[in-house]
Amino acid sequence: MTWVRGFLRIIMKMFDKIAIVGVGLMGGSIGLAVKKKRLAREVVGVCRRESSRRRALRAKVADRVTLDLAEAVKGADLVIIAAPVGKIVGLAGICVKFMKKNAILTDVGSSKKRIVSSIEKLSSKKTNFVGAHPMAGSDKSGVENAQAGIFKDAVVVLTKTAGTDRRSLGRLGRFWKSLGGCVLVLSPEKHDAHASLASYLPHAVSYALSLTQDGRSVKLAAGSLKDTTRVASSDPELWKDIFLLSEGPTLKAIASFTRNLEKLKIAIKKRREKTILRFLRRAKKISDGIPGR
Amino acid sequence: MTWVRGFLRIIMKMFDKIAIVGVGLMGGSIGLAVKKKRLAREVVGVCRRESSRRRALRAKVADRVTLDLAEAVKGADLVIIAAPVGKIVGLAGICVKFMKKNAILTDVGSSKKRIVSSIEKLSSKKTNFVGAHPMAGSDKSGVENAQAGIFKDAVVVLTKTAGTDRRSLGRLGRFWKSLGGCVLVLSPEKHDAHASLASYLPHAVSYALSLTQDGRSVKLAAGSLKDTTRVASSDPELWKDIFLLSEGPTLKAIASFTRNLEKLKIAIKKRREKTILRFLRRAKKISDGIPGR
Repeated sequence: MTWVRGFLRIIMKMFDKIAIVGVGLMGGSIGLAVKKKRLAREVVGVCRRESSRRRALRAKVADRVTLDLAEAVKGADLVIIAAPVGKIVGLAGICVKFMKKNAILTDVGSSKKRIVSSIEKLSSKKTNFVGAHPMAGSDKSGVENAQAGIFKDAVVVLTKTAGTDRRSLGRLGRFWKSLGGCVLVLSPEKHDAHASLASYLPHAVSYALSLTQDGRSVKLAAGSLKDTTRVASSDPELWKDIFLLSEGPTLKAIASFTRNLEKLKIAIKKRREKTILRFLRRAKKISDGIPGR
Repeated sequence: MTWVRGFLRIIMKMFDKIAIVGVGLMGGSIGLAVKKKRLAREVVGVCRRESSRRRALRAKVADRVTLDLAEAVKGADLVIIAAPVGKIVGLAGICVKFMKKNAILTDVGSSKKRIVSSIEKLSSKKTNFVGAHPMAGSDKSGVENAQAGIFKDAVVVLTKTAGTDRRSLGRLGRFWKSLGGCVLVLSPEKHDAHASLASYLPHAVSYALSLTQDGRSVKLAAGSLKDTTRVASSDPELWKDIFLLSEGPTLKAIASFTRNLEKLKIAIKKRREKTILRFLRRAKKISDGIPGR
């Protein structure tokens, strides 16, 4: 009764084979979490370089790690592209050629509008693409810093468009909930608008704040400077790509922020105590209300 | 031989009597740290309200807590004004009237130029004023959140002017070192310039960033937004006063930051990949170099 056993083994796991394309901090963390929660019979990681392959194996983020994208993707029920945002669409173009019918293709990148519309044009009827963006990560990068726990209570946005397969969306939602995430379904446009305020803007501001410091001011760094500039230690290549892929919403968020800072500046200049207080109190109320504060 | 015992008891402690005027988070933390390190025979806290007095007593931040400023200050070797910045000069005016000869008066407020020049005009030859600003604190306030450990490895700026008594400066330096701080002696002007970049600017930016969020974006809050807006939960009254007392350096720091953010904005708008990368890399280098990172 081998087939019964095989069948049971498959249905007891959420997926039979998961391929993770790009095994850095994010892909590695997904691999660790999938293995910990036993959501797949097999987790295959895909790297571009032999050195990365060895690092991923040492970090034990997948059952096996290969440089052969086509082979890894073949027969997978779920393919997760966890490469830097600038490479996601190109990799998706290769994946869809080798993926089996009805398998789910997903990603973990920011900038959903650009990515989702490009991949939806690529993926034929047989492959179901659902865009995803787990709002988790770190200013650190690399598979060595991967952790199964980073998705716990993290918001995971899944994108829904006219072309999204509802069944795949549901399955992917259950997958992310199993990893500890809070799933939120949004259109790619809404995702980008919210993420530009909640993520791209804080990064842009943090980088600019860091660049404004000099050798002496950093010696006086207390909690405020340390916290506000932490994400300015994030990967410049990655953030260059995110800013350029989400150029519109990012610029809009920066403009909106600049207007607010200008208001505060004018109120300080004109010594308008009540205006300053109202500004700071409203800001504090929003900050106090951020989930997990 | 009572006088010998009394004398020994005094010389074995760094100070005989320390009065802490204002027992909130900062004053309370100093009280706890002084008691822990046994730096004084007696620590007296001063509050304005009976309810605050009871809270301070419950938090055990001083040997006794009184509403009588004159009585607390009389006979003290060291008087530390740990009230909000807007009240420091007014309180100093009262303290100097009751302090004994050669006692040290100090504070813990930001905005050193305004505070130091005002108090130096007040304090006569007999009282030695040395301005101080421990770069430690919290977005939380209140004596309940006081902790002896917040000064560990924190930079503590002491101000030095033409009128500063060198012996008092040395004693106060040893006091702060005993509480775990790294003492840095600066002119009030230099302090304000550095602190405006390292502390006032991050606070202004954090408040503006928080105010730019909306109800939906905060739902997507990941580490970047949480970290960059943490200090926007700080006390609005306190920060209104700091911004107004250090108006000049604060506005200068905001202008410098705005120019940098504008550069990034233009580079994104014009899709200048290399310029963006250079900007982010330089910022990352500064952020990575912040002490304690």
